[in-house]
Amino acid sequence: MGFTFFLLILTISSVVASPNPFNQIHLLMPHSGSAGHKHSNLDCLSWRLAVETNNLQKWKQVPEECETYIGHYMLGEQYRKDVDLVTEEAYEYAKGLNITKDGKDLWIFDIDETTLSNLPYYASDAVAFGAIPYNATLFNEWVEEAAAPAIPGALKLYKQLIELGFKIVFLTGTEEAYAEARTKNMKDVGYTTWEKIIYKGVSDGSGVVYKQAKRKALEEVGYRIRGNMGDQWSDLLGTNPGDRTFKVPDPMYYIG
Amino acid sequence: MGFTFFLLILTISSVVASPNPFNQIHLLMPHSGSAGHKHSNLDCLSWRLAVETNNLQKWKQVPEECETYIGHYMLGEQYRKDVDLVTEEAYEYAKGLNITKDGKDLWIFDIDETTLSNLPYYASDAVAFGAIPYNATLFNEWVEEAAAPAIPGALKLYKQLIELGFKIVFLTGTEEAYAEARTKNMKDVGYTTWEKIIYKGVSDGSGVVYKQAKRKALEEVGYRIRGNMGDQWSDLLGTNPGDRTFKVPDPMYYIG
Repeated sequence: MGFTFFLLILTISSVVASPNPFNQIHLLMPHSGSAGHKHSNLDCLSWRLAVETNNLQKWKQVPEECETYIGHYMLGEQYRKDVDLVTEEAYEYAKGLNITKDGKDLWIFDIDETTLSNLPYYASDAVAFGAIPYNATLFNEWVEEAAAPAIPGALKLYKQLIELGFKIVFLTGTEEAYAEARTKNMKDVGYTTWEKIIYKGVSDGSGVVYKQAKRKALEEVGYRIRGNMGDQWSDLLGTNPGDRTFKVPDPMYYIG
Repeated sequence: MGFTFFLLILTISSVVASPNPFNQIHLLMPHSGSAGHKHSNLDCLSWRLAVETNNLQKWKQVPEECETYIGHYMLGEQYRKDVDLVTEEAYEYAKGLNITKDGKDLWIFDIDETTLSNLPYYASDAVAFGAIPYNATLFNEWVEEAAAPAIPGALKLYKQLIELGFKIVFLTGTEEAYAEARTKNMKDVGYTTWEKIIYKGVSDGSGVVYKQAKRKALEEVGYRIRGNMGDQWSDLLGTNPGDRTFKVPDPMYYIG
């Protein structure tokens, strides 16, 4: 726990030291523990569960009263543990498939909050863990910095899947205009190889429509989508979802 | 909180007093708080989240090390709050549909852990909140008692939906052999009217297959499934899921 938390502080510190607008960690209320589950506002626990189970939809921002709770959850160890259990389960599933390594077995990863973490940006004063409405200009500045760290559990799974013989497709809502910065960011943090990395074109439509169309196209040319992992339900719903889907946590924003 | 908990104790007490084999509340470890989120075994929080998001599938029982955590969660206020937020959100959605009241707008409810609670049974020594493997004989004895309380949030939503003009269908995995006891139980606790109550026939197949077939049949005769609520993902996945689905919590058992 101490070590994980230390790494997280290091990650955040490196952002603080760099010359960018996200140089303020948004201040959280003093609290007896850093893991969100110790927070006394129980409705925020229900809110997060409802978000993760897709019971709450089309929400615009984290409720003001849950800002502190979500902040502690994301900065604390619970978020990482929650991610790790999902990525470990995904590996158990993938290992059990015993694929033939003909190059057609795909694993699809989303990028934001699935393989790369925007937490250093979301922890800034201007964002407050999603409690302040989304600002595309600020977010795109952050993307251009190519400074997002890898999500450790996802990076580990990525390497394991390649070892097992899976081909990797990154399918992201990031627009093509940011492809260069994003690709650099991915390589810098350890995602060094892939079958395809698919950025969203200007006429690709919204979340579910865009992602299902790209998955359908992959299956039409003979790929088998054996696994599909994302932080948004719009990564996982719709047609051609893949043989099995994995939802990693993200209580900071909603994409429909 | 005190009142809710008092009601729960009353519910459990009434079971203790009745002459049935479930007269022992399974003893939980002494603990500083009754709500599961205060528990120190954080992996159990991750386990519950992974269950609720359908990341863990085909599990046979609650892991032994999470028995105490799940017990506290189910007996404490967090479970009720988690349910209430979902049923309240479902009502907001249903209200917003402004249905025409032509008698074709359906709301589908599952029964076990959705509209009726088997918690008095699951809290018994012989079950240990799902940490002891499922015993069909014991469970069926419990069903025959017709003593399951209503889940308060679901009963409230049920009444609200009828007021809004929805027709209610209860679609349950309970077998036809137990229809009489179950129907009595439903009426006794306040579910007094419905369009249909569908019990599982001997040739109806498993969870998803059975439920999607019944939903398809309903749509084929002209019903519109506007909402669908269940505690298992197998209530909500497959074809003809309905316009919107709602997943209520259940970390005690898995039905595929």
